[in-house]
Amino acid sequence: MRASQFFISTLKEAPSEAELPSHKLMLRAGLIRRLSSGLYSWMPMGLRVLKKVENIVREEMNRAGSVELLMPAVQPAELWQESGRWDFYGKELLRLKDRHERDFCVGPTHEEVITDIARKEVKSYKQLPLNFYQIQTKFRDEVRPRFGVMRSREFIMKDAYSFHADFDSLKQTYQDMYDAYCRVFERLGLTFRPVAADTGSIGGTGSHEFQVLADSGEDVIAFCPTSPYAANIELAEALAPSEPRPAPSAKLEKVLTPKTKTIAQLVEFLNIDVKATVKAIVVEGDDGAPVLMLLRGDHELNEVKAEKVAGIKTPLTFASPDAIRTAFGAQPGSLGPVGFAGRVVADRTVAAMADFVIGANEDDYHYLGANFGRDCAEAEVADLRNVVPGDASPCGQGVLELCRGIEVGHVFQLRTKYSEAMGATYLTRDGKHELMEMGCYGIGVSRIVAAAIEQSFDERGIIFSDTMAPFTVGIVPMGYYRSEAVKAAADALYADLKAAGVDVLLDDREERPGVLLADSELIGIPHRVVIGDRGLKEGKVEYQHRTDAEATPVAADEVLAHVLAKLGL
Amino acid sequence: MRASQFFISTLKEAPSEAELPSHKLMLRAGLIRRLSSGLYSWMPMGLRVLKKVENIVREEMNRAGSVELLMPAVQPAELWQESGRWDFYGKELLRLKDRHERDFCVGPTHEEVITDIARKEVKSYKQLPLNFYQIQTKFRDEVRPRFGVMRSREFIMKDAYSFHADFDSLKQTYQDMYDAYCRVFERLGLTFRPVAADTGSIGGTGSHEFQVLADSGEDVIAFCPTSPYAANIELAEALAPSEPRPAPSAKLEKVLTPKTKTIAQLVEFLNIDVKATVKAIVVEGDDGAPVLMLLRGDHELNEVKAEKVAGIKTPLTFASPDAIRTAFGAQPGSLGPVGFAGRVVADRTVAAMADFVIGANEDDYHYLGANFGRDCAEAEVADLRNVVPGDASPCGQGVLELCRGIEVGHVFQLRTKYSEAMGATYLTRDGKHELMEMGCYGIGVSRIVAAAIEQSFDERGIIFSDTMAPFTVGIVPMGYYRSEAVKAAADALYADLKAAGVDVLLDDREERPGVLLADSELIGIPHRVVIGDRGLKEGKVEYQHRTDAEATPVAADEVLAHVLAKLGL
Repeated sequence: MRASQFFISTLKEAPSEAELPSHKLMLRAGLIRRLSSGLYSWMPMGLRVLKKVENIVREEMNRAGSVELLMPAVQPAELWQESGRWDFYGKELLRLKDRHERDFCVGPTHEEVITDIARKEVKSYKQLPLNFYQIQTKFRDEVRPRFGVMRSREFIMKDAYSFHADFDSLKQTYQDMYDAYCRVFERLGLTFRPVAADTGSIGGTGSHEFQVLADSGEDVIAFCPTSPYAANIELAEALAPSEPRPAPSAKLEKVLTPKTKTIAQLVEFLNIDVKATVKAIVVEGDDGAPVLMLLRGDHELNEVKAEKVAGIKTPLTFASPDAIRTAFGAQPGSLGPVGFAGRVVADRTVAAMADFVIGANEDDYHYLGANFGRDCAEAEVADLRNVVPGDASPCGQGVLELCRGIEVGHVFQLRTKYSEAMGATYLTRDGKHELMEMGCYGIGVSRIVAAAIEQSFDERGIIFSDTMAPFTVGIVPMGYYRSEAVKAAADALYADLKAAGVDVLLDDREERPGVLLADSELIGIPHRVVIGDRGLKEGKVEYQHRTDAEATPVAADEVLAHVLAKLGL
Repeated sequence: MRASQFFISTLKEAPSEAELPSHKLMLRAGLIRRLSSGLYSWMPMGLRVLKKVENIVREEMNRAGSVELLMPAVQPAELWQESGRWDFYGKELLRLKDRHERDFCVGPTHEEVITDIARKEVKSYKQLPLNFYQIQTKFRDEVRPRFGVMRSREFIMKDAYSFHADFDSLKQTYQDMYDAYCRVFERLGLTFRPVAADTGSIGGTGSHEFQVLADSGEDVIAFCPTSPYAANIELAEALAPSEPRPAPSAKLEKVLTPKTKTIAQLVEFLNIDVKATVKAIVVEGDDGAPVLMLLRGDHELNEVKAEKVAGIKTPLTFASPDAIRTAFGAQPGSLGPVGFAGRVVADRTVAAMADFVIGANEDDYHYLGANFGRDCAEAEVADLRNVVPGDASPCGQGVLELCRGIEVGHVFQLRTKYSEAMGATYLTRDGKHELMEMGCYGIGVSRIVAAAIEQSFDERGIIFSDTMAPFTVGIVPMGYYRSEAVKAAADALYADLKAAGVDVLLDDREERPGVLLADSELIGIPHRVVIGDRGLKEGKVEYQHRTDAEATPVAADEVLAHVLAKLGL
C-alpha cells in the first residue's frame, strides 16, 4: 500500500479522555476514532489490525473443526424470555421495540439464538457433536464504558457454541477449543495465561479465561509459579490454614474503642497485629434475614464466593444500616458474633483463629480475646476471601502469587442450562429424547488489539507483532520521495516485497522525514527500511526493527533478502 | 471441505411463508434460516456464498482506491438531528434509548457518521479526495419485510462515501465507483443494468441504480433497445407527444354516468376509447390547498414525479374525501377542471388532448368534448406519469421497453447536502473554508445472493456461478463412500483440487447416492464429479456442470485436468 492511497491520521497528543496507554496510542496512531461514549470507528489503519486478528481467529477455529455462520445482531425478546435472561440480564442488555412495538435486543451474546437453531436442526445423535462460530459486532450497554475499545459498548466478538450427546463429548470439544485459543494467542504474539474462572451470568460449570498479562489489567490472577495452577482471583480457592485452631488463652474483655470505624483505625488505637482482628460484614440471606460474615482484618471479602454460600441472596446484597441496627443493636464498625442470634459464616482463616478482636455489638466497643465455642457459637465455615500472595496454592505445590490480566477469551461448559430452558433435545440411539450438552467459547476480537498494545509499547508508540501489525514492513524514502534514486530504490523494494506477499507500506506522503519516521514508530510497524540519497551513494539503506535501539546499515542490493529473513520467509 | 466436517441441512419442501423462488431455494438449500420477521441467520452454506460476494466487492473497492474502515452500527441521535433525518426518516429507522435514556438508532446507512469523521479529520484541500467504505450489518425496520434476505430488516451492505474539493472530482470518483460496480456484478456472473434513478431519501443530484434483471424484481426499468438509455420507471421521462394539440371539434356536453367510479367502468358505459378519457387525482399543495392532477385514463400517476412539481407537499399527500367534496362539490370519480378555480396540473399527454371525457364535478356526471382554453383554463403542464412500452425514449433513438429488476447497488452524487447540514468544510488553496462535495455508493451484499438465485435456478435448485458458489466443485462418491476404490479415487481428487486452490466439497455423508446428487443440485454447486465402483472398473468417472443435461464420462486419470480446464485454471 502506498500511504498516499491510504489514510494515515496521527495525533501529537491523545485526547484527555484517554487514560490507558493502549487507548491513548490507538487514538494517536489513528487506529480508532470516538463517535460517542463507548462507540468507536475503526479507521483504516486500525481495521487492518482488527482484520488480522479476525483472520487468525478464523483460521484456528476452522482448523479446530468449528463451522462459521452468522446470526442476526438484533434478537427477539421471546428467546431471552425462554432462557430466563430477559429479566436477569439487567441494563447491559440494549433493549428496543420495533415499529410494531415488539421487544428486541441488540445481542451481547447468542446462546439463545444458537440454541433455537440447534433445537430446530438437530434430530438425532448422529448429527452430534456440532460446533458453530461467528465473528460479529455485539453490544453491551456498559455502566461505565472506558479505556477505548478495551471496554466499549459496541465490540467485535468471536463466539462459538457446541452441542453434544454427552458430557464426555463436550469435554473433548472444550479441550479442542482451549487448545485452539492457545494457538490463536501464541500466533498473535501475546503473553497470556489460561486461568480457571467463574462462569458468571453465562452459567454452566467449568470455565477458563484467557488473560493477556498486563499491569493495567482489570482482572487479578492468582497463580502458582511452581505448577500450571492459575485462576481468576474471583475463583481462586483460599485453603484453610494447615495449623488447627489454638485453644483459647485470653479472657473475653469489652473495651472502649471510640472513632474506630475501620480495621486500620482499630489496629492503630489498640496497637495490635491486624492478624488478630476479625471484621464483620452483614449480607442478606435468601429470606431477607441478616447473615454475618467474618473475615480476618487484613482479608478482603470475595463477593463471588460469598454469593455461592447456600442460602445467600443472589446477586449478593449488603444489609441496610437500618436492618443492621435492628439485628445487632449497633452500627457497622462494632459488629460481631458475640450475642448475635442469627446465622454466622466465618471464613476458613477466621475459623482457625483464637483470642481475636471483634466488634461488641455496641457502638464504640470491641471485645478482646474472643473465641468460638466459648464466647459465641461455632460458626459455619466457608471460603469467603480473596487469596493473597503467599497463600498456599490449591494445587499443593507452592505458594500463590498475583498478577493482573486483561480477559480476551473465555470458554465455558454450559452443560444443559440453555438446552433445558429452551427444550433442545435429540433422539438417542435408543430412541429417547435427551437434552443436548452445550459449550460456549468467546474471544474478544476488538479487545485483543487494545490488550496487545497494553502489553507492548514504548515511549515512541505501539510495538506490534508481525502477525498483528497493520503493515509488517514500512519503507520510508527520505527527502519527500523526490530524489529519483531514492524513488527508484523504494519503488523496487516495494514491488519486491509485495510480490513476496508481504504487507508493506511505502510512505510516499509529502511530509518531513521526521514525521514519517515518528509515524512509523507510533503506528508500531515492526520492520522499517529507510532509504536516503546519502546512503544510496554508498550502496546502503537502513534496516531497523521497532524494538532495535538503532538502525543497521544494509547493502541496498541485499535489503530484500535481509527483510525476508527477518520475517522468516 | 468434507461434508462430514461441515453442516449441510437441506429441506424437501420450503416453509409456506416463502413466496419467491430465491427465498424458497435459500431455505431449502440451507443457506439461511429464519429467526424472526425479516431476521435471518446465515447458515454455514449461505455464509460461504455471502463471503464470496463480500470478497469480490472488497477487492474491487480496493482496486478502485476506496479505503476500508468500520463505523459503529449503533449511532447517536444527535448526528441524525444535525442532518435533519432524525425526524424525516420515519419508522424505518430503528430507534432505541441506552441505559441513560439517550437516543440512538441502529444505522440503516452512515452518511452522518462518515461526515462527522470527515469534518474532524479533513483540514485542507491537500487531503482530498477521500473515499472510504465499509462492509457492515445494517438495520431497516421495513413496513413489510418479505422475500427472505431480499427485503429483510437486518442486512449486509457495502457503503462507501467520498469527499471532494469540487464537483469535477466528485464526478470522477462517481465514475470510478460506477465502473467498479460494473466489474463487481460482471465478476459475480450477474445479468444487470445500470439505470438512472431517483435519489430518494438519501438526497443529492445524480444517481444510478444497478439492477439485476429478473421477472420477480420489484423495480420496473424503462430502457431503449437501440441505445444505452435505461432508467428506473420512477425517473424515466415521458416526453410530450410529438403532435401538437388538435383544435376543439366537439362541443361540451354533460352526460349522466351512473356507477362509473373507475375509468374502466366509464369506458365501458360510454363505449369509448380509453385514450379519450382523462382521470383526475387530487393532492395537497404546500399550503394544504387541493391541487388537481390530470392524467390520460390509461396512464398511471408517477408519485415521485408528482412530488417534484413545485409547490406540492412532500411526501406526496392525497387530499381527503372531505377536502375534495368541499373543493369540487363531488366525489372522486366525477372530478375535473371545468369549473374548478384551484390549481390544475396536466400531464404532458393530457395537455396535448382535445375533446376529452372528464368528470363534471357533479356526482355521476361527466363531460364529453372537454377542451383546455375553451371549457376551462389552460393547465400547468408537467411530466406526471409512468412511461409505458412504446413511448418515445428520452434519448431520441427509439421507443421504450420495460423490464423488471432487483436493485443491488446504488451510486449517488450527494453534493453538499450533508456537508452543509453538518458543517463539513475544508481549507482551499486560497485559505477559504468551502463545503466538501460528497458521493455515496451502496451495494446490498446479502441481497445480491437472493438476486443471483432469482436470476439463475431451475426445477432442481440453485445454479450458482463459479465465483459465488459455496463450493466450486462437488465430489460425490457413490455407495456411502464405503468402497475402498471409490474412497481412494475421491480422496485423491479432493486433495489435488484443494492443492490447486479450488473450493471443493467432498460429500462423505452416510446418505443414499440419490440424496447426495439431489443436494448438490439443490445447493447449486456448478461442477460435479461422481465417482462410482462401476465406472472405476472401466477407468471412468462422471463430470457434469450444473447446467448440463447429462453427465459426461471422463477418464479417471484425466478428471483433474478436465475440471481445472472447466474452471479456467
